[in-house]
Amino acid sequence: MTIAAAIQELETLLGERLNRSKSDRDLHGQSEVYYRPMPPDAVAYPETTQEVSEIVRICAAHDCPVIPWGTGTSLEGHALALKGGVTVDFQRMAAVIEVNDADMDVRVQPGITRKALNEELRATGLFFPVDPGANASIGGMAATRASGTTTVRYGTMADNVIALEVVLADGRIIRTGSRARKTSAGYDLTHLFVGSEGTLGLITELTLRLHGQPEAVSAGICAFPDMNSAVNCVMDTIQMGIPMARIEFVDAATTRAFNAYAGRDMPELPHLLVEFNGSEAAVAEQSTRFGEIVAEHGGADFDWATKPEDRNALWALRHDGYYAILASRKGATAMSTDICVPISRLAEAVTQTQADIAESPLDGPILGHVGDGNFHAILMMDPGNPDELAEAKRLADRMAERALDMGGTVTGEHGVGMGKMKYMTREHGEGWAVMATLKRSMDPQNILNPGKLVQVN
Amino acid sequence: MTIAAAIQELETLLGERLNRSKSDRDLHGQSEVYYRPMPPDAVAYPETTQEVSEIVRICAAHDCPVIPWGTGTSLEGHALALKGGVTVDFQRMAAVIEVNDADMDVRVQPGITRKALNEELRATGLFFPVDPGANASIGGMAATRASGTTTVRYGTMADNVIALEVVLADGRIIRTGSRARKTSAGYDLTHLFVGSEGTLGLITELTLRLHGQPEAVSAGICAFPDMNSAVNCVMDTIQMGIPMARIEFVDAATTRAFNAYAGRDMPELPHLLVEFNGSEAAVAEQSTRFGEIVAEHGGADFDWATKPEDRNALWALRHDGYYAILASRKGATAMSTDICVPISRLAEAVTQTQADIAESPLDGPILGHVGDGNFHAILMMDPGNPDELAEAKRLADRMAERALDMGGTVTGEHGVGMGKMKYMTREHGEGWAVMATLKRSMDPQNILNPGKLVQVN
Repeated sequence: MTIAAAIQELETLLGERLNRSKSDRDLHGQSEVYYRPMPPDAVAYPETTQEVSEIVRICAAHDCPVIPWGTGTSLEGHALALKGGVTVDFQRMAAVIEVNDADMDVRVQPGITRKALNEELRATGLFFPVDPGANASIGGMAATRASGTTTVRYGTMADNVIALEVVLADGRIIRTGSRARKTSAGYDLTHLFVGSEGTLGLITELTLRLHGQPEAVSAGICAFPDMNSAVNCVMDTIQMGIPMARIEFVDAATTRAFNAYAGRDMPELPHLLVEFNGSEAAVAEQSTRFGEIVAEHGGADFDWATKPEDRNALWALRHDGYYAILASRKGATAMSTDICVPISRLAEAVTQTQADIAESPLDGPILGHVGDGNFHAILMMDPGNPDELAEAKRLADRMAERALDMGGTVTGEHGVGMGKMKYMTREHGEGWAVMATLKRSMDPQNILNPGKLVQVN
Repeated sequence: MTIAAAIQELETLLGERLNRSKSDRDLHGQSEVYYRPMPPDAVAYPETTQEVSEIVRICAAHDCPVIPWGTGTSLEGHALALKGGVTVDFQRMAAVIEVNDADMDVRVQPGITRKALNEELRATGLFFPVDPGANASIGGMAATRASGTTTVRYGTMADNVIALEVVLADGRIIRTGSRARKTSAGYDLTHLFVGSEGTLGLITELTLRLHGQPEAVSAGICAFPDMNSAVNCVMDTIQMGIPMARIEFVDAATTRAFNAYAGRDMPELPHLLVEFNGSEAAVAEQSTRFGEIVAEHGGADFDWATKPEDRNALWALRHDGYYAILASRKGATAMSTDICVPISRLAEAVTQTQADIAESPLDGPILGHVGDGNFHAILMMDPGNPDELAEAKRLADRMAERALDMGGTVTGEHGVGMGKMKYMTREHGEGWAVMATLKRSMDPQNILNPGKLVQVN
């Protein structure tokens, strides 16, 4: 067995930092969603890029799969060892290498989490804005092209990764990009690796763009009679060039779940939650103008606050929304969908999805990033019940088809992994074959995270 | 001869829209820089994507090079027919296909120029911000990953192209991306083609991100005692989160050339030119705060204006800077360098470059995009004089080496073409070999713009 031969060599290389225990393999064979466990044959804990390179060289020599692992918080089975092999856990490569205040960038190792990074940055006056919810590793966030609540202002990982160091399928180490803010020097390898889900190389270092911590922050919330009014309000705000740092929505079902969870009595209507960053004067002006637009669209009184504790209270509906939904049905698991459509089609997409869910035996409260046209129906089901799993998949399929019909994408920020591969031909057509061409050229043995994102054969 | 066979078939396909006249071939064999003429064997004028696909299929069948052509304004010989073949001129594919006001995007054909696009957008309240100076075609701007004066606020072409339609080397037509504002659905093919300089495919349609025309614009100019003060002023402004729409600098030599050209008597010092976009209140606040930062860094009185004619008067130094430099030596041609470094190294890079130029017999005034760390020394030479050409190349080489030593790039926005290939190994190391791997997988016959950007053999 070739995997066994690889593991033998890896033990010589790594000693105790190659773990073959059942408990560690099981830990790395799980995900946060409904997939069955798929443990690797061993877990490697490299400490240097050079070690990662040697691990991959050994695995390549023995046709052994290599699966990168950050925090295991991805939602499409990205880090499961579908074909066994060696999981490379980056927890010992989690350092901040260098902060460049003047250039507002930072070099980090892939295992650092976004919260740990922001802790280390606190004193610099700078921060890293991408916030996918989970306290994911920066390497994993880059590999899955994560985004989240701040994308409308600060962009996705694609917009905030300046340069990478990557170990290729044959163990070569390359650097992509530079510390320059822009370049037109050849193919954009940085963007090729961002979102490649470990299938083209293992990210061993990242240079990230940082942003200045805002002088002032204001946050607000308001209820709307329906989705259309809420979405139109956001479209007008964007078109007027009022820069929102975050603009989120939750539907009436999420508000209902939150009321039950938090003992509140908010109106069971769709809500918008907004945040502005800037100077004191700028956020005050932006909040006022936003309030006027809210009123024009029939929104209720726009409540806003600038002090951190008051802001958090206003935003609790969004921060706790997912947990409130999970708590709404004991023992159930969530299937989190992730479609993204042009914002002009968003109200329609949400309304049609709600109608589907209303006719289904399953619950599926909806929340999302309205500024990006991206939303999640949190489909609640018992994964041990085949009928419920099938029904959740049916609802998710309908959402995916609808997103594509509307010119959107089946995954705004969660990635393809194993879960979304079935939609790739429909979404990309011949473009998916091009992705396979690229994969074959970069990883001809198909050892890097096999069975994810592309279909090689 | 295989090219001849291809041309015969193309004549059947295109009739008079395949032009073999010497005048048309010569026109497409020139560039704006010092390269010798390299005319193609014929020029094709397709009107549809389907025709572009058929052109490429025919050329592939006969191993005939295919070179895409927009306006011919690129600066590194990108569109020259180094190995003969057929130039595909997109001037008959220059339409706006669809403006989506609500989603702030637009679908265009590649041949439309940025000025023509903005003319068509005028009534919508939206605009396309990328401004490389020349009135280039949108397709060419995407192919070379162009940027320019507005990058500090609105990003480069990489940030503003959402989706593409591309004809591949075998004639297949693919679509990359979607109209969704973000996606994590697989490899980022859009960013792979943006900046690929026609070597991986021919762009036949683009979906672009638009921005709201600002309610108010203010522009300003001020002199600084030296480069360091000017650059530090800009770094502080960025760190304070004051959003500049443009921030440009010109050196004392450029100011001197401008004084001579325009009959002015501005102080022969480095200058910063800035523009703010936003609400009336926001641009007033931003201008005031910027003025304070200028004063802290020893800048002279900060002159600013909001009316278009007054703004243009203030910005004449920048708008006319290049022409003033060209006019400064009769009969000379410019070699425009294009390095980009981390902004913390910018003052040093400019100062060292000025010292090199001071010791050289050639003149080389400097201007650039200080917010991005990107600048151009405009090396003035007689291209017919081998000594001057060699000296200009020597100065450009030194700049390129310096940029790389400082963690930057040899080309911030002009691209690789033929002119910058010699630096690619030094800039990318093994990453350049990866680019060749990608090129071979996508264009195994090497018919798409051969001899540019990558080294295949």
